[in-house]
Amino acid sequence: DPNLKVFSLNSNPELAEEIAKVIGVELGKCSVSRFSDGEIQINIEESIRGCDVFVIQSTSSPVNEHIMELLIMIDALKRASAKTINIVIPYYGYARQDRKARAREPITAKLVANLLETAGSTRVITLDLHAPQIQGFFDIPIDHLMGVPILSEYFKNRMLGRDIVIVSPDHGGVTRARKMAERLKAPIAIIDKRRPKPNVAEVMNIVGHIEGKVAILIDDIIDTAGTITLAANALVENGALEVHACCTHPVLSGPAIERIEQSKIKELVVTNTIALEDEKRIGKIVELSVAPLIGEAIIRVHEEQSVSTLFD
Amino acid sequence: DPNLKVFSLNSNPELAEEIAKVIGVELGKCSVSRFSDGEIQINIEESIRGCDVFVIQSTSSPVNEHIMELLIMIDALKRASAKTINIVIPYYGYARQDRKARAREPITAKLVANLLETAGSTRVITLDLHAPQIQGFFDIPIDHLMGVPILSEYFKNRMLGRDIVIVSPDHGGVTRARKMAERLKAPIAIIDKRRPKPNVAEVMNIVGHIEGKVAILIDDIIDTAGTITLAANALVENGALEVHACCTHPVLSGPAIERIEQSKIKELVVTNTIALEDEKRIGKIVELSVAPLIGEAIIRVHEEQSVSTLFD
Ligand SMILES: Nc1ncnc2c1ncn2[C@@H]1O[C@H](COP(=O)(O)O)[C@@H](O)[C@H]1O
Ligand SMILES: Nc1ncnc2c1ncn2[C@@H]1O[C@H](COP(=O)(O)O)[C@@H](O)[C@H]1O
Repeated sequence: DPNLKVFSLNSNPELAEEIAKVIGVELGKCSVSRFSDGEIQINIEESIRGCDVFVIQSTSSPVNEHIMELLIMIDALKRASAKTINIVIPYYGYARQDRKARAREPITAKLVANLLETAGSTRVITLDLHAPQIQGFFDIPIDHLMGVPILSEYFKNRMLGRDIVIVSPDHGGVTRARKMAERLKAPIAIIDKRRPKPNVAEVMNIVGHIEGKVAILIDDIIDTAGTITLAANALVENGALEVHACCTHPVLSGPAIERIEQSKIKELVVTNTIALEDEKRIGKIVELSVAPLIGEAIIRVHEEQSVSTLFD
Repeated sequence: DPNLKVFSLNSNPELAEEIAKVIGVELGKCSVSRFSDGEIQINIEESIRGCDVFVIQSTSSPVNEHIMELLIMIDALKRASAKTINIVIPYYGYARQDRKARAREPITAKLVANLLETAGSTRVITLDLHAPQIQGFFDIPIDHLMGVPILSEYFKNRMLGRDIVIVSPDHGGVTRARKMAERLKAPIAIIDKRRPKPNVAEVMNIVGHIEGKVAILIDDIIDTAGTITLAANALVENGALEVHACCTHPVLSGPAIERIEQSKIKELVVTNTIALEDEKRIGKIVELSVAPLIGEAIIRVHEEQSVSTLFD
């Protein structure tokens, strides 16, 4: 379909290539580079007039560079008369700044939503927002995809016949853990962190039965990996047979890789919403692709947009 | 006045300090740092409820970091009930992307104006926009200050009794050169670059009399310094006695410093709209401060805003 164009920016070109293959198109030609002073220079090298355009860009680190690339690309597409500008953000950065936890804090997740709309995007496709409320930060349609089915599928056959338990590392993640537990027909457990007194170390209290079981920890984001590695060690100390961990978005900043290597986590299963640098591709980490999931979503959205044209 | 607050972000804290001194206030307390994954974390550490707030930030290199800091700060100020959010952008980055020079280009200077308004700024103070049209990209009031008086003042006494000529390095800068010439009661000259045929080197043709004179080249931005150093050398080859150069915004990226050192430019006079890294503070470069100019503008705007309150 010549009216469907898929472009990749710089955050995750490998994933974009895979998505293009799933859809059966070539990636659109554009160059995204820097002027001598670091300003972003974008050249779209083919006509996109009247097209449904999909732009693939995770707002992963360097997050500010990736956000500005996306905004400038949207501006260029708008001025080049794209019919729709659909932005595919496999990992939505700044999602943890989604409320005023203290006085005079910004709500950057909302700011970024406003910026994307101001630039001219008409639709968003994203995966596992840190809080589902972030969908409400947008006034344009948003498709919110889930990593749980992909992560569950990985464990399904591998854990056949084993006594497993799905563990949420905190109260915020229980819904996610329950979804995985349903798919794997397993019970859940929750790690209940409590600080008995200020300035006293947190106590890891485990709610649910994990003794003698294979524990699968699930989270949306693993960033510095403090929470997940402490949780894994607590599980082993409390009698878990072995600990696997999984997440959709492997941010893995700062001490994350070192912590994971030194932890009791046997394997860490992640998706490719965030491109892993080579030095993070350690033996314990397994990467699953979200390309089929995103590719299908793009096809569905494009069909819908083509149908709506028939009725225009 | 407790209703006047001035904050500095990370692009130019020295200039912000100077401006605060000119106004006679302390800089507002806030911390602008990074989370482990590179996301910006802003904490405003004093109440600004009901205040006229001024935020000082050049969108100089790293431009995307500095723009995002500014946007997030504006969001935080808005949510903390500032009465007005005045953004002081001594150097407005992306100003050269102010039109579609080719098909399918973004107009990033306009995009950034929209982003700043979307975030919640209510007024802009800036200096020497690359094109005066950029003022029209904003729908909020904008104060457009000029570097020419400061640069002219520097040369006024130093060139007393010398036979000077003010030179514009291209046709785009003639208005600016004329303004300086009026202040210094000097004639002007223009460098007229022409490419006789495609893929043939440009010819530097000088319009105006420069022989035996002291030439002062003036531009708004000096970035890689290609234009200005070629112009200087052409002036000397054509009989100029010596060549001085000046600009408001010393971007000085890539080969700029090396080119300036090896050129015929005797001294380069710049302002501090962009903070110079230490390694760029070479002997030939003289820095003038725009703090008095900006400080006065802030006082004027704040008075106006206080008066308008009387009439509310
Ligand atoms: N990039 C980040 N890295 C670490 N912490 C963050 C980041 N962004 C926001 N936060 C903090 O994380 C908390 C929200 O996380 P959560 O409780 O998991 O929703 C808030 O206190 C934020 O200040
Ligand atoms: N940061 C930059 N560095 C160098 N050139 C730029 C930059 N931004 C825009 N341009 C180009 O500079 C030209 C405009 O400069 P000017 O003719 O001086 O207004 C356009 O062709 C732009 O593509």
